Amino acid sequence: MNYARNAWYVGAWSHQVEAGTPFAMKILNERIVIYRQANGTPAALEDRCVHRMAPLSLGRCEGDRLRCMYHGLLFEPDGRVAQIPGQEIVPPKARVRAYPLVERHSWIWIWMGDQALADPELIPAAIGLDHPDYILGHGHLDYAAEARLINDNLCDFSHLTYVHAKSFQTGPDHAESLPRITPLKRGIRFERWVRNVAARPGRSKQDTAPTDNFGGYDFLLPGVLLMWSGSFPVGTADFYKDGAPDYTKAIEGVTFTSQAVTPMTDRASRYFFSWGPHRDHGDEVMRDGLMQLAGMAFEEDKIMIEAQQRVIDETPGAQIMPIAHDKGVTLFNRLVEHMVRSEGTATATT
Amino acid sequence: MNYARNAWYVGAWSHQVEAGTPFAMKILNERIVIYRQANGTPAALEDRCVHRMAPLSLGRCEGDRLRCMYHGLLFEPDGRVAQIPGQEIVPPKARVRAYPLVERHSWIWIWMGDQALADPELIPAAIGLDHPDYILGHGHLDYAAEARLINDNLCDFSHLTYVHAKSFQTGPDHAESLPRITPLKRGIRFERWVRNVAARPGRSKQDTAPTDNFGGYDFLLPGVLLMWSGSFPVGTADFYKDGAPDYTKAIEGVTFTSQAVTPMTDRASRYFFSWGPHRDHGDEVMRDGLMQLAGMAFEEDKIMIEAQQRVIDETPGAQIMPIAHDKGVTLFNRLVEHMVRSEGTATATT
Amino acid sequence: MNYARNAWYVGAWSHQVEAGTPFAMKILNERIVIYRQANGTPAALEDRCVHRMAPLSLGRCEGDRLRCMYHGLLFEPDGRVAQIPGQEIVPPKARVRAYPLVERHSWIWIWMGDQALADPELIPAAIGLDHPDYILGHGHLDYAAEARLINDNLCDFSHLTYVHAKSFQTGPDHAESLPRITPLKRGIRFERWVRNVAARPGRSKQDTAPTDNFGGYDFLLPGVLLMWSGSFPVGTADFYKDGAPDYTKAIEGVTFTSQAVTPMTDRASRYFFSWGPHRDHGDEVMRDGLMQLAGMAFEEDKIMIEAQQRVIDETPGAQIMPIAHDKGVTLFNRLVEHMVRSEGTATATT
Repeated sequence: MNYARNAWYVGAWSHQVEAGTPFAMKILNERIVIYRQANGTPAALEDRCVHRMAPLSLGRCEGDRLRCMYHGLLFEPDGRVAQIPGQEIVPPKARVRAYPLVERHSWIWIWMGDQALADPELIPAAIGLDHPDYILGHGHLDYAAEARLINDNLCDFSHLTYVHAKSFQTGPDHAESLPRITPLKRGIRFERWVRNVAARPGRSKQDTAPTDNFGGYDFLLPGVLLMWSGSFPVGTADFYKDGAPDYTKAIEGVTFTSQAVTPMTDRASRYFFSWGPHRDHGDEVMRDGLMQLAGMAFEEDKIMIEAQQRVIDETPGAQIMPIAHDKGVTLFNRLVEHMVRSEGTATATT
Repeated sequence: MNYARNAWYVGAWSHQVEAGTPFAMKILNERIVIYRQANGTPAALEDRCVHRMAPLSLGRCEGDRLRCMYHGLLFEPDGRVAQIPGQEIVPPKARVRAYPLVERHSWIWIWMGDQALADPELIPAAIGLDHPDYILGHGHLDYAAEARLINDNLCDFSHLTYVHAKSFQTGPDHAESLPRITPLKRGIRFERWVRNVAARPGRSKQDTAPTDNFGGYDFLLPGVLLMWSGSFPVGTADFYKDGAPDYTKAIEGVTFTSQAVTPMTDRASRYFFSWGPHRDHGDEVMRDGLMQLAGMAFEEDKIMIEAQQRVIDETPGAQIMPIAHDKGVTLFNRLVEHMVRSEGTATATT
Repeated sequence: MNYARNAWYVGAWSHQVEAGTPFAMKILNERIVIYRQANGTPAALEDRCVHRMAPLSLGRCEGDRLRCMYHGLLFEPDGRVAQIPGQEIVPPKARVRAYPLVERHSWIWIWMGDQALADPELIPAAIGLDHPDYILGHGHLDYAAEARLINDNLCDFSHLTYVHAKSFQTGPDHAESLPRITPLKRGIRFERWVRNVAARPGRSKQDTAPTDNFGGYDFLLPGVLLMWSGSFPVGTADFYKDGAPDYTKAIEGVTFTSQAVTPMTDRASRYFFSWGPHRDHGDEVMRDGLMQLAGMAFEEDKIMIEAQQRVIDETPGAQIMPIAHDKGVTLFNRLVEHMVRSEGTATATT
């Protein structure tokens, strides 16, 4: 399985990388150490000393630099070796790879491909934890499964009806009808209206009137989901001809979730997520309720996807059989394959 | 290592497969889901959805059918897909393998080979937990070892003298003399008399008189042991010229044990067993005592066989050196090899 | 990676092999069972029964002999089979490998190569736990790493400045200057003076005067470190022109440590060690303090080396870049490679 390299991968939550403590991560089977320089700016280096392959993530931050704590080699944030204890000359080849890195939207984004193409404009417009309009909870979850399976899951919400029957109590709508799907330059847009939904108990406003509910998300390279949902007066879906509404017209329930899937190795992935209400539609209590719900739901996904991975691994010759709901999955995977081919690179797989 | 496919393998105890709860098993490296239809009849399907390879054992029983809980495909007990949510047409190729299955003697038997040959007459005559003449305890144990090593163990009871020196306190007879061995059409018969055995303390009848003790078992394809033992007046062994006696003439200690070894994967097996006295020779207290003994003894086997497996795996070139006691082992393994060759199939091994 | 076979490997602490209890060990990927004969003399056999590959380490000691407790084969300490239950003739080929073994310096040494060359004179002069001049603590530690990485670590003490910054609080001397290195016939000698070291609080004698501190060790095939250290009046280093001093002239702090690295498998090693003061320079309290320090320090090494092993395994193509401090490492590895070539044997690696 190949992944696009010319893309920004989420390497960590900003707060995971603390001053003075190197942070070890893997992306696309590569060991990466992230640390903060003296002024707090993060840097990302190949996590393997040039000397005897000790991990730099067991090292010590010294100002802007990172020292390997096996035999003391000292590295600059650009990967060059600044000092080798016991010898005066540092050979020019003594350097490790440094990765382009941007800290934005509470995430540390790392560019895995051609450095010359590392354009920060390509970073998806996630909503950070400090955004003034949203009250967000957050977390991350590790999967013993390859990232593609999680991406596939996120490109087909028909699974909500089955996998999340207990947590979200999703009705048959997601399974019986298809969402509107629109290709984007670096992703796929999914939009879905569910009409005339009965009010849930405890709803904050207009307790008795049914609503038209909208949910729409972009699933963007390399594996970032940005989704908002909201409830509108009955008739809004017709008014917009099933297209996306103006979210400021929502009468309740506007929430936003940012999610990112990072392939760590061929069989390990990290799933970063935040979720919460718009300030006009909820508060900290609602946020906590959503996070509790997300905790249940993401565990349901994890059980299913890790089991799916085991079946795949144990039956190497078996074929999948695509169905109507796979349209988004197929489009996104084609986009990735196109990227991989155009990069002329293939990530090593085992 | 190959195993016969045209044979009935024990997939589960009947009570392990509860109504409404799919049961996951592996036999010969194949994932199988067993579930009960509306009327209680069990069905066995390949445990891998045709869509994206999610395991059906995480699914939901719906009447006679089983629904994949990833994206909702619904399967008939014969393996056909009855419904694909989100699309109207179900392609004819949409089906998983269904396995011939018979529920008998408290076990669920699954046929792994050619469906046309799945003759229930070939099911070994085990004694079920509900048999009126016996008071049986039961259990199962998983081994991190291939089934053949357990079969080998069960085809050579000379190990009782050593492996079970603590639990059964078997004397040297089993090691020093050979049993009578007779080939059967689908197995091997083992018979052994031990003459003039001193009475054990606490024996129920004739406390002071020694006995001639008989133990005889059939070891049948694919790996089923059916054994009875009993004590007879001294002279009975001579009377029967070392052949099998009439068990109704036993003066005490008639018990029966059914055992089945199921190869799950190349390095994992499940061992099913029951054991207990004939109603004329014991009661629930005796049964519980035998089960406690079996628990000790089977743990002794497990320690030895799993260690043996590790040695085999770490020394791939090493050869075994057969000894006189291997006659039964050799005959049974030849029978299996003959079956495998005649089937023209070889189970994939890793 | 290859290791010399014509060498004495430490298989166990003497006290690990108790009378009546077979002891399982692996050296160079070979399973070995060590047991004591009737008079206490240890013997070492291949830990795999010739019959069906059960481990003899699950066996039973019977006088000078060891019985396999699967089907009862009985082995002589020279590896021959003495008895096969159930048959009268023991075929001549029925034998397992017996390893030359010497018990000395509280260790059981096992020769892994050509038996004709097993010269006890080649056993390194470790100091046993019963040596009258030293008060020694001891232990052992298992690594999930190949032995070579531990040998490398022990041939370059510049790591003390970094890896052991917390435990030993080693200053920059070890990193900034090189030790004197002298090739030996079967090893490498390392010697280092640190001049004019300020007195540590709590020092036993001459509390206020600084000292010249000497540390010297031989690192010998197959991976045995024998080291002593001591403190001398300032000027002693100059007097000896940086060479080794007479340890009886030390004014304090004379200690000795014997260490042995045994490659068990390609990715597992056992590290045996003792350490303690000379009777003239310390007592049981000092010994216990040193062992506590060693416990901290060896854990630091283990964390670093096991991490290094993981990096090496995950980046198979990566190259090391030798530095000035690698001189001893390089010399020792060349010595091993020379041995391996001259033996014309290569240990199987996976």
